[in-house]
Amino acid sequence: STKDTVVRATLFPGDGIGPEIASSVKQVFKAAEVPIEWEEHSIGTSVDPQTNSFVTFDSMESVRKNGIGLKGPMTTPIGKGFRSLNLTLRKSLGLYANVRPCLSIPGYKTPYDNVDLVTIRENTEGEYSGLEHQVVKGVVESLKIITRHASLRVADYAFQYARSNGRKRVSAIHKANIMKKTDGLFLQCCREVAEKHPDIVYEEVIIDNCCMMLVKNPSLFDVLVMPNLYGDIISDLCAGLIGGLGLTPSCNIGDNGLALAEAVHGTAPDIAGKNKANPTALLLSSVMMLRHLGMVEKADRIQKAILKTIEEGKYLTGDLGGKASTTEYTMAVCEHL
Amino acid sequence: STKDTVVRATLFPGDGIGPEIASSVKQVFKAAEVPIEWEEHSIGTSVDPQTNSFVTFDSMESVRKNGIGLKGPMTTPIGKGFRSLNLTLRKSLGLYANVRPCLSIPGYKTPYDNVDLVTIRENTEGEYSGLEHQVVKGVVESLKIITRHASLRVADYAFQYARSNGRKRVSAIHKANIMKKTDGLFLQCCREVAEKHPDIVYEEVIIDNCCMMLVKNPSLFDVLVMPNLYGDIISDLCAGLIGGLGLTPSCNIGDNGLALAEAVHGTAPDIAGKNKANPTALLLSSVMMLRHLGMVEKADRIQKAILKTIEEGKYLTGDLGGKASTTEYTMAVCEHL
Ligand SMILES: CC(C)[C@H](C(=O)O)[C@@H](O)C(=O)O
Ligand SMILES: CC(C)[C@H](C(=O)O)[C@@H](O)C(=O)O
Repeated sequence: STKDTVVRATLFPGDGIGPEIASSVKQVFKAAEVPIEWEEHSIGTSVDPQTNSFVTFDSMESVRKNGIGLKGPMTTPIGKGFRSLNLTLRKSLGLYANVRPCLSIPGYKTPYDNVDLVTIRENTEGEYSGLEHQVVKGVVESLKIITRHASLRVADYAFQYARSNGRKRVSAIHKANIMKKTDGLFLQCCREVAEKHPDIVYEEVIIDNCCMMLVKNPSLFDVLVMPNLYGDIISDLCAGLIGGLGLTPSCNIGDNGLALAEAVHGTAPDIAGKNKANPTALLLSSVMMLRHLGMVEKADRIQKAILKTIEEGKYLTGDLGGKASTTEYTMAVCEHL
Repeated sequence: STKDTVVRATLFPGDGIGPEIASSVKQVFKAAEVPIEWEEHSIGTSVDPQTNSFVTFDSMESVRKNGIGLKGPMTTPIGKGFRSLNLTLRKSLGLYANVRPCLSIPGYKTPYDNVDLVTIRENTEGEYSGLEHQVVKGVVESLKIITRHASLRVADYAFQYARSNGRKRVSAIHKANIMKKTDGLFLQCCREVAEKHPDIVYEEVIIDNCCMMLVKNPSLFDVLVMPNLYGDIISDLCAGLIGGLGLTPSCNIGDNGLALAEAVHGTAPDIAGKNKANPTALLLSSVMMLRHLGMVEKADRIQKAILKTIEEGKYLTGDLGGKASTTEYTMAVCEHL
């Protein structure tokens, strides 16, 4: 390989099944001789007064310094007045885009076998502003904020992503027929960026129609870019098309090329520590991390090994209808490398 | 039949393919001897100064007086500063709930064959407030408004609908983990109403998870109730699960039992006037109208005839893969009565 300088990457194993699936990634990376040195931080265990959240200042500094990280699932303790771990990370690290490739997995049966699309979600504003108040008793309002800055930034990223991944079309998803100003501004920014990429087809699709098209024929889409809440909804819908969050990778992009890949499924406390968890989503997320670092050959190799293991079907975990342990599945992936 | 008093109902044929599919409904009602006398109004042709919209004062008075109506597709002329026809009707007639039963149609192939759910959408507020403004250049905001009044009203309707249609469960769809105050109030209202219906199972599902569950296994749901935009998105997603808006009926509920059934698909200008349109959505919507009027026997008879015609597959219109004209399809339905 041409890339033999060792890269330091932050690892947040997370809680619940997090440590087990993170260990799966470490094993696969070792077997594939990926030149990565992990800097592990356990977050989510206690409140850091510097951040008033379960994410410590040190752990955030680690991602900032390394510019690259991988994150397992984490639960925010409910009702304690602390901010969600995920939202804290997004805000503090300026993770402005959430990227999720959804690709049908050969051998894993869903009603669809032709999904090959990527959702790119604006990750910092919109309906997630946190600005809400009661106007009078029985009347409450939330503010959705759309800015030119954040819209241009995510649109830029979507077109760059399309270009560097050989994709042909970007669809901006919106409801500008109703939210003329907010979604209208989002679309205007997408159009401006689209003009700089005349070789990539640009289209605009209303969100309700988009969801109908997605369930009727997902192959109509390539790259989708959208405001925060639409991205939240559509990225989960698309994950459903290929089998769910346990099979869907995700990566968050921040300023200066920072990237934090993450498994977006839950912590599955019921099977935690039982060597039963399916590490696929975190493994595929680690593959996104490698692509982001330009380690394309390693990424391809690991991805192929994962897909082969699932297609072969001998060592599937319980959620995929098999009986294999996390360790057995991981060994199978390593053998297919 | 026990119901032989003639009921006056308003009919808005709409534009594009509207008049053809409305004529299909009239023929089927005649053949089934439905005791309905149509009061026809063409709206959408010119601006009424009394309403500053393409909906005339007279046509709205007609629905108000009759308390029952059927509406074909209509396009709002773009960019003339007039309000959308659909939104005008919703506001003026106080159509607070949009109801869409989604039922898999035997013989019409989609990736799903087990869909049997009903979406109930709050139809008057939320993200559709129309309140938006620019804060500073490059920063815009939209207001989402949730009221106790409208939330209780739609929740009430959802539980009543569940009860009178023999349904067992109501799921409230929300994003209250992010919009704690607005969606929080919506949920609180649903909970209050749920307490009055202890025999109906009540659950709360976050919208992103709901969309994933819907594409993975729609049979998990029964009745879904939700704020305006989520309803807009999810009702179209669900329509997609059974084949699209051309096969999905819809009915809007207003105060004092007022009901306006409507086909929610487009006007299909490309095939308008060519006797090619599929009248199924408007026919099934007219069946909802009959159920609302308590004409259950007629409703069942017509619905069965429509489903038989599609299942038989001899007289399908182009959109369903057949070659029949609107007239031939309509005749087949009449023969199956
Ligand atoms: C847990 C929740 C706050 C989060 C979100 O809404 O963004 C989740 O759904 C996601 O997509 O990462
Ligand atoms: C046309 C549009 C304004 C409308 C809406 O968003 O409500 C449509 O999508 C619907 O569902 O009736």
